[in-house]
Amino acid sequence: MPKLALLIVDVINHFAFDGARALAAAADAIHAPLRALRDRFDAAGLPVIYANDNWTDWHGGFPDLVASSLALGGTSARLAERLAPEDGHFYVLKPKHSAFMATALPVLLQQLDVDRLAIAGIAADSCVLATAIDAHMRDYRLWVPSDCTAARTPALKRAALHVLRYTCRAEVRPVRGGADPFGIRGAGATGSAPT
Amino acid sequence: MPKLALLIVDVINHFAFDGARALAAAADAIHAPLRALRDRFDAAGLPVIYANDNWTDWHGGFPDLVASSLALGGTSARLAERLAPEDGHFYVLKPKHSAFMATALPVLLQQLDVDRLAIAGIAADSCVLATAIDAHMRDYRLWVPSDCTAARTPALKRAALHVLRYTCRAEVRPVRGGADPFGIRGAGATGSAPT
Amino acid sequence: MPKLALLIVDVINHFAFDGARALAAAADAIHAPLRALRDRFDAAGLPVIYANDNWTDWHGGFPDLVASSLALGGTSARLAERLAPEDGHFYVLKPKHSAFMATALPVLLQQLDVDRLAIAGIAADSCVLATAIDAHMRDYRLWVPSDCTAARTPALKRAALHVLRYTCRAEVRPVRGGADPFGIRGAGATGSAPT
Amino acid sequence: MPKLALLIVDVINHFAFDGARALAAAADAIHAPLRALRDRFDAAGLPVIYANDNWTDWHGGFPDLVASSLALGGTSARLAERLAPEDGHFYVLKPKHSAFMATALPVLLQQLDVDRLAIAGIAADSCVLATAIDAHMRDYRLWVPSDCTAARTPALKRAALHVLRYTCRAEVRPVRGGADPFGIRGAGATGSAPT
Repeated sequence: MPKLALLIVDVINHFAFDGARALAAAADAIHAPLRALRDRFDAAGLPVIYANDNWTDWHGGFPDLVASSLALGGTSARLAERLAPEDGHFYVLKPKHSAFMATALPVLLQQLDVDRLAIAGIAADSCVLATAIDAHMRDYRLWVPSDCTAARTPALKRAALHVLRYTCRAEVRPVRGGADPFGIRGAGATGSAPT
Repeated sequence: MPKLALLIVDVINHFAFDGARALAAAADAIHAPLRALRDRFDAAGLPVIYANDNWTDWHGGFPDLVASSLALGGTSARLAERLAPEDGHFYVLKPKHSAFMATALPVLLQQLDVDRLAIAGIAADSCVLATAIDAHMRDYRLWVPSDCTAARTPALKRAALHVLRYTCRAEVRPVRGGADPFGIRGAGATGSAPT
Repeated sequence: MPKLALLIVDVINHFAFDGARALAAAADAIHAPLRALRDRFDAAGLPVIYANDNWTDWHGGFPDLVASSLALGGTSARLAERLAPEDGHFYVLKPKHSAFMATALPVLLQQLDVDRLAIAGIAADSCVLATAIDAHMRDYRLWVPSDCTAARTPALKRAALHVLRYTCRAEVRPVRGGADPFGIRGAGATGSAPT
Repeated sequence: MPKLALLIVDVINHFAFDGARALAAAADAIHAPLRALRDRFDAAGLPVIYANDNWTDWHGGFPDLVASSLALGGTSARLAERLAPEDGHFYVLKPKHSAFMATALPVLLQQLDVDRLAIAGIAADSCVLATAIDAHMRDYRLWVPSDCTAARTPALKRAALHVLRYTCRAEVRPVRGGADPFGIRGAGATGSAPT
């Protein structure tokens, strides 16, 4: 039976690019609600998928990214401590903004029989938006938990969420308000964890 | 020598979808500046490429879309009269929002040796934005002439242009103000029309 | 209910490339069995899809390709006379060898709910093989009717059919022998022609 | 300056699929010449890229695949011992046959400015052929070192090499014979190793 998955974008992050300081400050607010959301997916046996930029480190893997983020301290370390993938989570490294471009994500989602995605992470206006538009074009129904994403300015976050809501037809509601538009618990009852 | 192209999105349009009436009203304002812009590209010998939804008519071609748009009257006809492709223009039919998805556009742009794109047409928040994000991920430099695009609400157009400017690093300036960020005339001097 | 489609590759063909003379001579033998096969798909109400090279004519459409092929005479004209698409057939122009690359075919097959493909046309070792490998990677079951495809040498046709049979797990059997591995008639009974 | 890269396909391999025993027996012959070839690329400072099936282990990375292959013993272990990637080598995990499908390879090759590929590994008729056809469609010039690839039957290897040579226009020559169609040493002189 088709099911819901959680897609977590670029939270393992060195914040080493233009505008990164402002983005890091905003991103510091997301780890608590996002971790709570991830725990709910884990409890329901629903897939949790990390799609993370490789930061042009073409030689390493996901564990290397986590290690270097922890070593950096600051927001990088706080996000990595709370949100690094654990056993049973899936991950794909992405070379571009969208998690669908030049990655195995389309194949993975098909194998997992996913038809709805909760998309969280950073930045709201960049990799989250690019990923959501690609998901919308492939007919996934979307939920963007608004307290689990961040942008480098409030105006960019507002603009991105506006497009996500009215163009991509995404549910845009915070985890903290108790939102659960796709019924995580109910979905979990029928979803057996893929191997 | 790499050159600039004009990409015109979904102006051959039946306006037969949710929210189409509001979008058509807004789109009525774009045909004059967009035609002026297209004439400048033609005069400079630079490529003009139409990327248009096939509106799920899988049996026909571009001329059929133009004919049926003319027959519909209203904004559909006004856009088709002023903006239908002419000899020497390129066109691709697209089945989804982005002009890069499931079309020959990536191959065409490479064969034309294009490195900068002016992206115009409708809707600003939907197919234009999806196309621009895909172009940005492929390292094209972008200009979105702000009076040559439209959305079904002013808030959606504002949000889309905000993301285009600050996330996709696009030039967002009107044709009517005389904007020419990539130097159409200069570019044309070196660009011979591809066959 | 998932159904079978017929995919016809590059039969509208100017034979204007290296090795084209030998390929044309071999291709002259395919139009009779391929037309018989197409008639059976039509009679069963099953989709017939043309995927044809645009021969780098980026300005025209499918009808232009048919017209220029008829005008050329020889094998080009004989194939176009017998096999040009008719009302109700689908077509996509492809810029590269595989019908899946940079075309709307993946979207069309999904919308038609196709899960099995009969792939015919030319050349067996080039565009037919590239298309079949792409289809195999996307989990389509395949039938390559061996008298409906051709190559510029017998050795190339033999090599291609060997790989198709043993690597892509395609049924490789001639139309003339009465082969119908996927049950065209039965499939047609449940398949209503998509619009 | 555009340069040559070595692409090594599926040599980290559990041989746990239909026909794997015959393939493993044939693959035992390739590790010596392939290692010699890899050493020459390393010595010349040219990129070595591994593209390896993830064997539907969506949770692990490349080091996990190497470890489990070593633990299996037999051909799996012999290939992993001699050919596991080392520092400075690139790798991508692929979910399907072609190394270009749903992977970062296209982006990596562009960033490395590669225009010629030596493609080695297994199986000649399956993942090597699918990858070579995709590379050919993207205009890469190809060399398939014939003693660095294997198939589960001699007839399949012969068929694949025939198509590679005459359809994909690949150089098909053994490393042991001293073949160097693209001039590894000369190419290396101008190529600085990308980071």
